[in-house]
Order: sequence, then C-alpha cells, then structure tokens
Amino acid sequence: MTSTFRQRRRVEFYETDMAGIVHFSNFFRFMESTEHAFFRSLGLHLHHEGPDGESSGGMSGWARAAASCEFRAPLMYMDEVEIELTVREKRSSTISYDFEFTRVADRNGPIEPELSARGSLRVVHVTGVPGKHMKAVEMPADVARLVEPASAPAPAPAREGGTR
Amino acid sequence: MTSTFRQRRRVEFYETDMAGIVHFSNFFRFMESTEHAFFRSLGLHLHHEGPDGESSGGMSGWARAAASCEFRAPLMYMDEVEIELTVREKRSSTISYDFEFTRVADRNGPIEPELSARGSLRVVHVTGVPGKHMKAVEMPADVARLVEPASAPAPAPAREGGTR
Amino acid sequence: MTSTFRQRRRVEFYETDMAGIVHFSNFFRFMESTEHAFFRSLGLHLHHEGPDGESSGGMSGWARAAASCEFRAPLMYMDEVEIELTVREKRSSTISYDFEFTRVADRNGPIEPELSARGSLRVVHVTGVPGKHMKAVEMPADVARLVEPASAPAPAPAREGGTR
Amino acid sequence: MTSTFRQRRRVEFYETDMAGIVHFSNFFRFMESTEHAFFRSLGLHLHHEGPDGESSGGMSGWARAAASCEFRAPLMYMDEVEIELTVREKRSSTISYDFEFTRVADRNGPIEPELSARGSLRVVHVTGVPGKHMKAVEMPADVARLVEPASAPAPAPAREGGTR
Repeated sequence: MTSTFRQRRRVEFYETDMAGIVHFSNFFRFMESTEHAFFRSLGLHLHHEGPDGESSGGMSGWARAAASCEFRAPLMYMDEVEIELTVREKRSSTISYDFEFTRVADRNGPIEPELSARGSLRVVHVTGVPGKHMKAVEMPADVARLVEPASAPAPAPAREGGTR
Repeated sequence: MTSTFRQRRRVEFYETDMAGIVHFSNFFRFMESTEHAFFRSLGLHLHHEGPDGESSGGMSGWARAAASCEFRAPLMYMDEVEIELTVREKRSSTISYDFEFTRVADRNGPIEPELSARGSLRVVHVTGVPGKHMKAVEMPADVARLVEPASAPAPAPAREGGTR
Repeated sequence: MTSTFRQRRRVEFYETDMAGIVHFSNFFRFMESTEHAFFRSLGLHLHHEGPDGESSGGMSGWARAAASCEFRAPLMYMDEVEIELTVREKRSSTISYDFEFTRVADRNGPIEPELSARGSLRVVHVTGVPGKHMKAVEMPADVARLVEPASAPAPAPAREGGTR
Repeated sequence: MTSTFRQRRRVEFYETDMAGIVHFSNFFRFMESTEHAFFRSLGLHLHHEGPDGESSGGMSGWARAAASCEFRAPLMYMDEVEIELTVREKRSSTISYDFEFTRVADRNGPIEPELSARGSLRVVHVTGVPGKHMKAVEMPADVARLVEPASAPAPAPAREGGTR
C-alpha cells in the first residue's frame, strides 16, 4: 500500500506567462500529471473503457470534484520542481490528495529547496458517458488495495474538538 | 463601487480533454479572464509597469495567492458558460473573489441554467520583479475606490450564529 | 456558398509567455477557433457521432493534416486581433484554409491595423475511432454545398505556366 | 558542432482533446521544448537579459518566424514520443530546424516505431523589448560555434539537379 509519490519536472517556456513565471493554472496540470504518474507507479490506469469496451461508448475514470492551491513562491523558466503527492483520504469512491511543490533547481543548477505551492485534489471514481450520465461508483478493487491514506483516520472519538 | 461582474464565453475545442469535457485547469483560466474583464469594465489595468517605466525593470500587478474550485457538472465543447464574479473581501493589498460557473447553452442553444462549478481566487497587489524580489504593497487608490466587497462585513456581534 | 469568415478576439493573460507576447502555439488555437466559428456561422458542426450514435463508439470529424504559420508582429496582452479565414481549396474529403491575423487594437484602444501573422490549415474529413482506425471519407453533403473556395480553380489550360 | 538532438516525452492527459488525441497545437510546444533541450544540451540559454541587465528592460532571444507541421498518426494519452530535432539551416541571425515525431510506446509499453508528425521551426535571434522595438541581430558567438546544419550546403554547382 502506498501513500506518497514524488516526481520532478522542469518548467517549460510555454508554461510561463508575461509575468515571467509559471501560470498558476499549470500547477493544477502538474498535480494531475503527478497523480497519473502515481497511478502508473502502481501499475494502475486512471481511465478505463467500460465493461463493454468501445461498443458501450462509456468509460470509467476519475472525475475532478475539487481542486485548490496556495501559491508561495513562483516557479520560473527552467526551474526544476519536485512535486510530492500524499494520499490524504480514501473513501469508497473518492480519493483526496495533497501536493507540495518544492523548487529544487533554477536554470543554473540546484538551489536551497524552497516551497513554491501547496495544493489539493479530490477525485471521484465515476462511470458513464462524460457530460451525459455519469455517476459515482465504488473504486476498482486494485486501486482500493494499493492506494492508502498517509495517516489512517483516527477513531471517531479522537476527532472530537478537532479543527478539521 | 462595484461588487459583481458577469461574462459569458463559449467552450473552445482546444479547452476540452479526452474525457470530452473542459479540462479542469481551464476553469482557473476562465476565472482569471473574468477577473481581468471585471477590471477592464472599471477602466482598471491589472498589470502596470513600475513608476520608472521600462527602466525600472519592475512592475506592479496582482499575484495569485490562492485558487480553488469545486466541480459540479462538466462543460462541453460549444457550451456557453456564464461566469459570475463576486468580490468577497477587500483588504489593503488583497482581494478575494468568488466565481460561479453556470452552463446556459449547449451546442443546440439555450438550456435550463445549470451550476457547473464554484471557485475562488485570492490575489495580492505586489511590486518588484517576478521571481526575484516581489513584495505585497497597498493596492492602487483607483482600485480601492472602485472595487467593493459584495456585502460589507457585518459588525462582529452580528456574525454570531452565522453560517459562513 | 461562403469563402471567408472573420472573428475578433482579445488576447488573454494566460495566452502570453514570459517574452510578454502571445505564445506562438496559440495562433494555431486561434485558427481552430476561427474554423469552428466559421462552421457554426453556416449552421454546421465539426464533430459528429457516428451513424450508430454512442453505441458505435465512432465519430466523424475533421482531422488536422497540416498547419503552418508565419509570424510578423507579436500579439500582446489585451490586444484585439481580427482573424480572417479564407477557404483556399476544397476537395472531396479535404479543406485548406488560409488565415490572416491582424492586430486592430491594443490595451488603449483601436490602432492602425497591423499584420501579425499568416497561417494555414489543411483538414481532412475522417471517420472511425481516433487513434485506432480512422479513414478519410467524403465530406458531408451540407459542408460540400456551403463551403466554397475563395477563387474557384481556373479551368485546366489556364493553369499552364502557373507558379503554384 | 552539433546538428541533431533527441528527446522523449510521455503524453499527458491535459495535452489531449475531446477527440482522444494530442491537440495539434501541442506539437508546436513539443518542438519548442526540444529546441530548448537542445540548447541546454550545448550549455546554451535561449533567452538572455540585455547587456544592461534588468535596468535595460530589454532582452535578446529567439523569436519564432515560422512554424509548420504535417500530421500523420495521432499521439494518445500515455504514448511515449521521440522527438528528433535536426538543424537544417543556419544564417547569421536565423536557425531553421526540422522535427520528426515518432511514437515509440503506448500505454502498454514499447511499440513498433511509427511516424506521427514532421515539423519545422524557423527562429530569429532578436534583441529589444518584445512587442515594442525588436530587431534581428547576429546570433551569439557561442551559438554560431556550437550549432551546425545537418548537412553543410554543398557548393553551388553541386546542387544542380537537386530535388530540393
């Protein structure tokens, strides 16, 4: 069972904007990319055709339910960023991920690691035809078996007075 | 003083992904686009060169501090979406916006309006050179004068029992 | 029968790059957007589900066969650009378009129109499942009827000595 | 002196469109990414601040003059594509590149290599302030020294009967 995953990527020129930094929308693409690499690292696919294959016209996959990001320090062209994914929560059809973006190199080489952003993503396992009739369904057994929240939720009483 | 703004846009083919719907990262681009159109509607610019113009190499602008979105119903190719911006909070250097995405037409014409997503954006007025030395500074006087939170924060006692 | 179409768009912040101008890849998105608006203006759709609808898992549509662009003057944030599409050639399953990008306004208002770029797109009407088994097929009758090359090809003898 | 360069990348979900394939505009981003990686492989940077650094407000860099692509076979989510850059021509301020996109793996692993697309890019070394006053200038000496056309242009007589 796995709870965390890391990948690095180098900022591409086309990911910058006229402020000279990575456009904030791209942090969400980087989260998705890391989520998918996490699944690949487990031998899992994120999108499946339906049980009837092409003829069903349907698919099952992981719809985005919510996404958020807090930006601390910008990423710039040619920076290398390490993106750490942590599985925060797993329910029958839902997974919540946290992400931490750390700038680890600039165009001149390694730098003192610096927090760039923190994000989160909540995804729901759905089946159907996107935009037509999708419904949340229990996640595949292999995903449920392999993906594990970083810290198992404490038993109910312990949560009293919690701030979350 | 203005607190809300609306614009419509039609979903472009290149904004979709292989799930047949608008890629979730584009909702953040749509928020930005609406924020900028809001500023234009007030005769305001979002990005200014520094007081010394080109020679300063610096600029002032609105850095993204946080962004979030909850997705309810997907947007599809050729859909028309109405994006409503509401100014939720204004501080000396910060503005927080809420956004509501409503699907108002599909490729065949007007439909029963349907909530597609709700988002938020917190932006900070900064000055300096992006990625080098930026710092939060008080927003320009014209912005402070023209941009107004939708409902001025009620005095403290009134908030008791509030749901927000 | 129609041979030309024009639309205007304003440059979005997220379409710029760190050079402060519209990223060149976006000119290709603008071409596509104009092509699709052209089809809409004729009451045509670019993508159809196959004859068997969802159950076929297939579709017909217009695959991109070639694209090119020459860049003369950059587009910048908040510029307004007029994109003129011209149908250059129509064959049984193929349409070739030329595009001219003209900068007609900057952030301060209308300017002396300036050529920004010239592009072209060759699209092929295909049917099948993208990435699996697609084949070029004759274009739909309504497209063939409504879309007309800007200057009908001259009769064969007249082409002698032509430069093309 | 170097004339060719290769890099591989895996198709990201957000690079696909509703046709289930990589959006054609992304091939141009892939070319740029490969061009930049080629420069990095030679220890070269593509964008420099002007001689006066920040205070000049200016920069030198490589503006795109022309770009084209012919599409043969689509790329799909999780495909691995090898992009081969070849320097076709070098003039005092201009470099022309050819690109070949070869699909080398799909989501299930290596496949029989398949040509996906062929592209080209012509870039010009410019100096100034983008969108204001840019002019073509001789390329930096280190670039001129390190970047070499794949086949040096033969002397004029030898070209007789050439097919190009």
